[in-house]
Amino acid sequence: MAKLEGNLVIAQGGGPTVVINQSLVGAVLKAREYPQIKRVYGAVHGVRGIVNEEFLDLTEVPREHLEDVAKTPSSALLSTRDKPDEAYCQEIFNVLKAHDVRYFFYIGGNDSADTCSIVKSAAEKVQYDLQVIHIPKTIDNDLQVTDHCPGFGSAAKFVSQAFAGVNLDNLSIPGVYIGVVMGRHAGFLTASSVLAKKSEDDGPHLVYLPERIFSIDQFISDVDRIYKRYGRCMVAVSEGIVDESGIPIVTKLSERVEQDAHGNVQLSGTGVLGDLLVREVKKGLPHIKRVRADTFGYLQRSFLGVVSEVDAFEAREVGKKAIEFAMTKMEDGSVAIKRVGDYAVEYFLTPLEAVAKVTKPMPDEFILNNNYITEDFIHYALPLIGKLPVCEKLSAPAVPKKIKTTKKT
Amino acid sequence: MAKLEGNLVIAQGGGPTVVINQSLVGAVLKAREYPQIKRVYGAVHGVRGIVNEEFLDLTEVPREHLEDVAKTPSSALLSTRDKPDEAYCQEIFNVLKAHDVRYFFYIGGNDSADTCSIVKSAAEKVQYDLQVIHIPKTIDNDLQVTDHCPGFGSAAKFVSQAFAGVNLDNLSIPGVYIGVVMGRHAGFLTASSVLAKKSEDDGPHLVYLPERIFSIDQFISDVDRIYKRYGRCMVAVSEGIVDESGIPIVTKLSERVEQDAHGNVQLSGTGVLGDLLVREVKKGLPHIKRVRADTFGYLQRSFLGVVSEVDAFEAREVGKKAIEFAMTKMEDGSVAIKRVGDYAVEYFLTPLEAVAKVTKPMPDEFILNNNYITEDFIHYALPLIGKLPVCEKLSAPAVPKKIKTTKKT
Repeated sequence: MAKLEGNLVIAQGGGPTVVINQSLVGAVLKAREYPQIKRVYGAVHGVRGIVNEEFLDLTEVPREHLEDVAKTPSSALLSTRDKPDEAYCQEIFNVLKAHDVRYFFYIGGNDSADTCSIVKSAAEKVQYDLQVIHIPKTIDNDLQVTDHCPGFGSAAKFVSQAFAGVNLDNLSIPGVYIGVVMGRHAGFLTASSVLAKKSEDDGPHLVYLPERIFSIDQFISDVDRIYKRYGRCMVAVSEGIVDESGIPIVTKLSERVEQDAHGNVQLSGTGVLGDLLVREVKKGLPHIKRVRADTFGYLQRSFLGVVSEVDAFEAREVGKKAIEFAMTKMEDGSVAIKRVGDYAVEYFLTPLEAVAKVTKPMPDEFILNNNYITEDFIHYALPLIGKLPVCEKLSAPAVPKKIKTTKKT
Repeated sequence: MAKLEGNLVIAQGGGPTVVINQSLVGAVLKAREYPQIKRVYGAVHGVRGIVNEEFLDLTEVPREHLEDVAKTPSSALLSTRDKPDEAYCQEIFNVLKAHDVRYFFYIGGNDSADTCSIVKSAAEKVQYDLQVIHIPKTIDNDLQVTDHCPGFGSAAKFVSQAFAGVNLDNLSIPGVYIGVVMGRHAGFLTASSVLAKKSEDDGPHLVYLPERIFSIDQFISDVDRIYKRYGRCMVAVSEGIVDESGIPIVTKLSERVEQDAHGNVQLSGTGVLGDLLVREVKKGLPHIKRVRADTFGYLQRSFLGVVSEVDAFEAREVGKKAIEFAMTKMEDGSVAIKRVGDYAVEYFLTPLEAVAKVTKPMPDEFILNNNYITEDFIHYALPLIGKLPVCEKLSAPAVPKKIKTTKKT
């Protein structure tokens, strides 16, 4: 069937990734190949830009410029945290209709898929032909159906390279190190902290995920055990770890502080969980003098220059495929990735409803007990982060001693 | 004069950098060219390894392996925080003498230069010929005499790329962002946060350094002004900022909390300063809803894969030059870098005493008022960080509105 003539709108929503513009540029350049698509518009600040009628015309932007934008981290069309309800989606639809838009593409996570689904319903109600495609992105890797999400591989590469470097730092000046990683409900990114490890004694030695109950007592006992074995201990912990009642550990530990302070102290901000865990280690294991925490924060999702080649390629492909699916199929949907062999991928379209609203936690087979990850996870994630830089420990024979026979401590 | 035959010991001290192994490998490979140098030993864990007689024999380690080690961040020989006193230095000398060491090289900061100087004195007292060379490294860039320090350029590259990425992130979802950068007494690294900026509205908009008094009231008023202008505000702040009495701001703000808590709350750890500044912004400017802080932490000095090509090259050169100076000159000293033109360098030997103990703050001409840096600093620092990745904002014409004429907020 011949597709309707009309305009196209593409937007980016939610937290940025370092390859989200690959999807944007992949879609825009592919869209410009089809004569049925008259103009290619980019909405500024996601769905809010649609409601405000803030569109950029991308139809004639030079390819060279777009190629530079594709390599640049964070949403080039800017983003929004707005989560549209029915009324908001109706507004979106009204604006799309006024601009003769027949193709709507939204690059985002599960909330964006939900928005796509509601906007589509609004169009159907008045029998307005609108094709809606969701293009997946999230560093959390927590979308349903797809094998993995564009954006995750590069964030995972950042986290693995960060831990690989700090592991050597911690080896050179030993102590306890806690790295707090993004991922409120899914532990994929925190688990990626192990991907550059070369041997068992490399850090992180402990990995705590939001999918498992975090017990402070067990944490202290785990750290104690590892520190006794290696003279140091590196911990990767997800920002979203919770206790047995589902209460975030950061809330629980902050409450202890607030109680001391008669409710006057409001501890909030990104570094808190790491600092609170440091305090617990110092309290529980006072003989360990050097205890440090870093919270990787926004660097994980936006750092300029750390990109997985595989992730960048796939992000580009899902953008292109979104257009191809729109032009060749009658369905709406979300572009998803299927893993084929070890390692190749295929792309397919899955219903919007299958991706909307619900997120995907780490599967059980990726989690070892409640303080580490499995080989299955490594096998799953390693192809996604691309090539790692050279990282080689010095190996050389020891020189026989001439004076001392015992080690000074 | 023919140089004495004997062995060589090289060690690495203090906080690691990502290019400190370039200096190590540069020195080791160059040393192996001289027949007077019988064996090339590496001390494990810096001066502590010498006292403990923990040496690795690097004389016959394959070049290919050393080249991989050179590319790897953090001290391959491991490090130490020991600051040797006279007695400790005497112990060092005793061990060096027992192993027939005639050449001692220490890669480190100003404390390491001081150690070199005291060890040399111990040798002179007993008329033992020992040539001592200090090889500079520090991410803080705070050594005297040298134009800049190996290790700084790569850390500065990390900080500038971090801010370049987060700037786009903050542009896409606006708010106040505070990035806390290493540098207890010198602001060079914090100042480097601006090096990837392309226009005035790019962040960071405010830069606070330890060389200037930090006033919380002025900070709040600065943030208010920038936020009104751009609808967002990005701040780079050095971990070492102090008030008018020289008291670190982190101590001052923590005390407020501790006072509330009747002394029970001990706030310590890397994320505290950022979180406390966030609290001050929220208190002082309650209309700003989104206020975030990241503390870059150990990633700045050890991140795998972010290396300034210039820095790596120069770190290698100071290692090689250290050996060449040792074999051709009679003096001991610290290898220093002289900038020639725009941009080339020469290497020279400066007395150990000129580098030992005292550090170098940012010169006044690099600091603008007490909340930003000057063009002079950019001109100074830009050649040191090497090539930056592509980073391009989208530019496209706006689409005329069809429904609305006013902007929804």
